Amino acid sequence: MSPSTALLTDRYELTMLDAALRDGTAHRRCVFELFGRRLSGGRRFGVVAGTGRLLSLLRDFRFGDDELRFLRDERVVDAATLTFLEGYRFTGSVTGYREGELYFPGSPLLTIEGTFAEAVVLETLALSVLNHDSAVATAAARMSVAAGDRPLAEMGSRRAGESSAVAAARAAYIAGFGATSNLEAGRRWGIPTMGTAAHSWTLLHDTEEDAFRAQIAALGIDTTLLVDTYDIRTGVETAIRVAGTGLGGVRIDSGDLPTVAAQVREQLDALGATKTRITVTSDLDEHAIAALAASPVDAYGVGTSVVTGSGTPTAGMVYKLVARQDAAGGWVGVAKASTDKGSKGGRKAAFRTLDGGTATSELIVVSDGFEALEQAAAHPDARPLQVALVVDGEVDAAHEGPKGVESARAHHLRVREELPVKALALSRSDPAIPTVYVDATPAAAAV
Amino acid sequence: MSPSTALLTDRYELTMLDAALRDGTAHRRCVFELFGRRLSGGRRFGVVAGTGRLLSLLRDFRFGDDELRFLRDERVVDAATLTFLEGYRFTGSVTGYREGELYFPGSPLLTIEGTFAEAVVLETLALSVLNHDSAVATAAARMSVAAGDRPLAEMGSRRAGESSAVAAARAAYIAGFGATSNLEAGRRWGIPTMGTAAHSWTLLHDTEEDAFRAQIAALGIDTTLLVDTYDIRTGVETAIRVAGTGLGGVRIDSGDLPTVAAQVREQLDALGATKTRITVTSDLDEHAIAALAASPVDAYGVGTSVVTGSGTPTAGMVYKLVARQDAAGGWVGVAKASTDKGSKGGRKAAFRTLDGGTATSELIVVSDGFEALEQAAAHPDARPLQVALVVDGEVDAAHEGPKGVESARAHHLRVREELPVKALALSRSDPAIPTVYVDATPAAAAV
Repeated sequence: MSPSTALLTDRYELTMLDAALRDGTAHRRCVFELFGRRLSGGRRFGVVAGTGRLLSLLRDFRFGDDELRFLRDERVVDAATLTFLEGYRFTGSVTGYREGELYFPGSPLLTIEGTFAEAVVLETLALSVLNHDSAVATAAARMSVAAGDRPLAEMGSRRAGESSAVAAARAAYIAGFGATSNLEAGRRWGIPTMGTAAHSWTLLHDTEEDAFRAQIAALGIDTTLLVDTYDIRTGVETAIRVAGTGLGGVRIDSGDLPTVAAQVREQLDALGATKTRITVTSDLDEHAIAALAASPVDAYGVGTSVVTGSGTPTAGMVYKLVARQDAAGGWVGVAKASTDKGSKGGRKAAFRTLDGGTATSELIVVSDGFEALEQAAAHPDARPLQVALVVDGEVDAAHEGPKGVESARAHHLRVREELPVKALALSRSDPAIPTVYVDATPAAAAV
Repeated sequence: MSPSTALLTDRYELTMLDAALRDGTAHRRCVFELFGRRLSGGRRFGVVAGTGRLLSLLRDFRFGDDELRFLRDERVVDAATLTFLEGYRFTGSVTGYREGELYFPGSPLLTIEGTFAEAVVLETLALSVLNHDSAVATAAARMSVAAGDRPLAEMGSRRAGESSAVAAARAAYIAGFGATSNLEAGRRWGIPTMGTAAHSWTLLHDTEEDAFRAQIAALGIDTTLLVDTYDIRTGVETAIRVAGTGLGGVRIDSGDLPTVAAQVREQLDALGATKTRITVTSDLDEHAIAALAASPVDAYGVGTSVVTGSGTPTAGMVYKLVARQDAAGGWVGVAKASTDKGSKGGRKAAFRTLDGGTATSELIVVSDGFEALEQAAAHPDARPLQVALVVDGEVDAAHEGPKGVESARAHHLRVREELPVKALALSRSDPAIPTVYVDATPAAAAV
């Protein structure tokens, strides 16, 4: 059995639950929404990631003996709440953007409907997963755009917490990377893994030549030799002397990459190794990758910048109550009033409007059902963005596991084609398309 | 049994192992060192964190059936290597800085000694843990310095991957925070947890007054009421009307905090609630905390900035082979030659030199044993920085669990007192003390 995820939770969710069970509001049906108020870091688009992971973690959101004992011993909640938690199981519904989908400010990435009691406790877990994974996926998509057809490998595990590293490998793959160095990501999510040798391999041996010979003996001549431990020119010369002109590749992990790549390509060609690939891996980000577009580089390995979201390590999404039932059972749209953090109350339906296949707006219809569909129908080509993820407590398994990852990656690569050209520039900017709200509620006044 | 941590590893470690088992170099004894070449982000000092976590994860670094099956099916390694991994157990030794200790460029934070085979495979796990946790602890220490005697709570779980969030709570606590919102950090590491209510609590109720009454009924009047869901002035007035002047605290999560805090203090005092505390929690970092020093704020809650290392989400440490035995059994210091990433070969002993209790340098003696001790003895007051963490495969349990955390926190707060005053400024700068290398190897020439 998987370990419980129930305590990956901020304490205030359980203290609210405790108080709500006392005053009866715990059983009011509520709609919570997970969304980003803006695209952090001046991004032109965001990429949703983490949804499939969250659904699996939701299955393990149960309070077992260990969790209940801690909550009792620490007096986090009272006895009645402990009893409630012992039987806790999310029985509500979640709709949301497909994993890999693009998003913009206000996009309702997840809509969680259930009682206050069952939905309020999911806030931290849902945000932790989506904020981290989407930040990585958004950075990764920019790198993937910059790299064009050249393959990208994620190699940043060492620069992220050991579990986040696995999630980061997954998010980068969904956003267009082709492989990861992280073995657990390979096992858990079926992502192709790669990697051959570090500098320590060369240093372990008495000579660079010994190291290269041993690597080729073990991995064959299609392997990639790391040639910059001592002198790069000598390293390349030794590599081809040892492996022959059929050597698969060389890796360069230091120096001024455009200069060094050009020199190494020239040297390889002069030695007859015209098919030997050049992989570069030194502190790359989307800007460095773009700057190498004209250089004779065959593949990129990206570490720190992708796993840390290239300057934006969290997507900054929030989880807000947007509608609830009142004492009489009617629905009320709600929103915090503070001007600097205002959010929009009410349940929402989201569509991407397209013109000739190119996205023109994020259309968010406040209210759902027929009114929303009518609004969307007014647009010639509006793609609905939300799908059912959990129905009455039943998780749709299609989004989980390696299959979910492949499907998210395919979806991402497909919908990225809808972006207008200006979305692909790397500089800071406003979102590439505007978010347009349409209020279709019969009684339009949200509190 | 805990899940295996063995695949939290970059593939190249296993391909190197595979090749080394073939050519016999796998059994050469090696010294690997984990260190940072610089203090990322213009920090004046770093704080070591993660050591205790790493030691526990090391206990679970075993290749079981699942791990071996994946490596076999994916042809990551050959049959001989699978057999080696099946019996894998780290039998070497690790010395290192105590958790909570300060560090500077080149500080040998971990020294791992064992065969190449057993030490090379720990690279990714060790770096993942120390890079993440130390980045958080370093940011947290700066916030703790800025906050002075006012309590700090870590509330950033939602802005970090769900497992990194637990580690971040732990690292922040070691570096001077007093509590966390993360319940799992409370259970696993014994860290005090805190939190009362979110905006959704107020929005759930028909009126703000209903919400405050219900919270007080459940949590007592010593609770903290969140007063900025609608209008702060009305919120404060309602809070005191409902709770009386004995209300424990109010929390403000929006607005221009110096202005708002002053207004709220004035209003509370005018209402007679002179003991009611003010907690602020809106997008704080060390600079915002410092700017609030003159404001009537009683406590800070910090989220995003602490869990993301306040602009520096990874400490940028590396794991390098620094010495190995040659074919004849003699020791050779080794280092990569590339000029932009040069590291210093050889085993090292580290001391902090002090003058009147204030740190003056990070003294790193290349070589160990008597020569190192002699060098250190030349300084009137040199504190040795390394302790034994693993001896012949046996982990020192004193560094693990809640006890390890408390001891690391106490150590941190003690050694922070040694910092010169200039180390406490928040602006970007060079390290507060210089790193001084002394080469005491009998044959001084490192390769």
